[in-house]
Amino acid sequence: MIYDVIIIGGGAAGMSAALYASRGGMKTLLLEKLSCGGQAVKTYEVDNYPGFYNNPTGLELSGAIEAHAKKFGAEFVSETVKSITDATGLIKTVNTRKNSYRTKTIIFATGATPKKLEIPGEDELQGSGVSYCATCDGAFFKDKDVVVIGGGNTACEDALYLARFCKNVYILNRSKNFKAQKVILDKVLNTPNITIYKDMIAQRFEGKTTLERVYAKNVVTSERGFINASGVLIAIGITPDSSLAKSIGVKTCERGFIQTDMYLKTNIDGIYAAGDVRVSPLRQIITAAADGATCATQAINYVNGK
Amino acid sequence: MIYDVIIIGGGAAGMSAALYASRGGMKTLLLEKLSCGGQAVKTYEVDNYPGFYNNPTGLELSGAIEAHAKKFGAEFVSETVKSITDATGLIKTVNTRKNSYRTKTIIFATGATPKKLEIPGEDELQGSGVSYCATCDGAFFKDKDVVVIGGGNTACEDALYLARFCKNVYILNRSKNFKAQKVILDKVLNTPNITIYKDMIAQRFEGKTTLERVYAKNVVTSERGFINASGVLIAIGITPDSSLAKSIGVKTCERGFIQTDMYLKTNIDGIYAAGDVRVSPLRQIITAAADGATCATQAINYVNGK
Repeated sequence: MIYDVIIIGGGAAGMSAALYASRGGMKTLLLEKLSCGGQAVKTYEVDNYPGFYNNPTGLELSGAIEAHAKKFGAEFVSETVKSITDATGLIKTVNTRKNSYRTKTIIFATGATPKKLEIPGEDELQGSGVSYCATCDGAFFKDKDVVVIGGGNTACEDALYLARFCKNVYILNRSKNFKAQKVILDKVLNTPNITIYKDMIAQRFEGKTTLERVYAKNVVTSERGFINASGVLIAIGITPDSSLAKSIGVKTCERGFIQTDMYLKTNIDGIYAAGDVRVSPLRQIITAAADGATCATQAINYVNGK
Repeated sequence: MIYDVIIIGGGAAGMSAALYASRGGMKTLLLEKLSCGGQAVKTYEVDNYPGFYNNPTGLELSGAIEAHAKKFGAEFVSETVKSITDATGLIKTVNTRKNSYRTKTIIFATGATPKKLEIPGEDELQGSGVSYCATCDGAFFKDKDVVVIGGGNTACEDALYLARFCKNVYILNRSKNFKAQKVILDKVLNTPNITIYKDMIAQRFEGKTTLERVYAKNVVTSERGFINASGVLIAIGITPDSSLAKSIGVKTCERGFIQTDMYLKTNIDGIYAAGDVRVSPLRQIITAAADGATCATQAINYVNGK
């Protein structure tokens, strides 16, 4: 049997692709190594997926999208993809430990993972004050004090984003130098409610049920202290899960994100990329879902045209 | 008073932009000439907005997105924009008949309108068998007979899309020649359940509560007849509402859709385009909503950086 499309990854992008592909009459298989939902599942509360205005949990929203995708007959299988063979052929083969599946098209929706500090309290308080996405979670800290960790463009943009509605924003940067562009850094320096702490690393997060304090240490003077804060945004980078794509020759940017054209096609015919794993201007559940729809529609046109 | 962003158009793209902008602390004004909702409102049933798996009406889904956007303080005003002055300045002015509003950024979410045949039954049965979007509504005609009207790429792609799960697909093209690319047309000709009628125009649609028959006429022989069908997809073109954007120098493609970069920025600083009005690979409610989120986030970064 030959699938019309195999989707690798069961986050919002992959599930939306499954929805659009199966609804469009494609024989559709979605392979997810764990349970579906992707990064969204780690979110306690989602209040910016347009239309879901009653703040669903990430699990609830993902569950709704999963139910929706399955409604049109897409198969969901829980297996880890090990390799892909004949990637450039008209029929490509996706291999898991147990099975080999043949398909006309492939959609990579393998996602990306924010880098962690690996310090005490980080996992325990994730979704309860500890966040990796200002656009997603910043609004929960309105009129409160927040800490941003990092020194690149994202960290500085996050600080500016938060400064619009948070009381005080504290940036902890582990070195003296910021990687952020000068124009962004200048704006940070000129924003009254942003305070910068250089040479400073976070050591642990504390709070009973939600974040209350960030403990930090100056790496030059070894001085220690803490900041009272309701939220911390960790903006030290994000790693795309693109090694499988790279292994078959899919082109990525220098940071490892998959490069596509505006139709979300990769450099290989019949192979597309959706969601966090691709080079994109914004990584949200809504943009992932839209990517999935676009990839599926393109895959349909591709299969119909062959 | 100066707004951080003015959004022109209250469809899914505009409302999502309003949600993301106001949630990000931007002083946000949305101007819509009619009531909000855009093209989605004309859809009887939406079953492909990921997560809303209980087939909301277009009005219900739009209402949910509108309520969501208003939750974060965006102002919605019902006025028609007449002109924009100082479009390239740091502060731009948006003029309606009654008021002038000053703003740092503008998001065009003015949408697009499918071309109509202007024949009896078309308006009456819209959303009840008469459709302008195969990706949106095709699935409602599973295992049924459908008619596609048009001879371009979209019409032929729609026919191929529908042929996967519909019983029979009949294409009515008003001339002998198809504008579609040869590769797509060849595939149409080789699909067993697609029948082509050339030199044929639809004259009226009939049905008690939903479409039952398409009456057509051969423009060469004047022969008349009808096709029994549950659905008709009218694919004779789509007109973007971009005249206001063009009037201030925003670049469009030859068909009038606004050109943007991958960040959805137009050729003018601080001006963005979201949804159906822009050059894009897919026009769905989900892609419009994602566009709105992207534009708003870019507008926030722009305002924060100034």
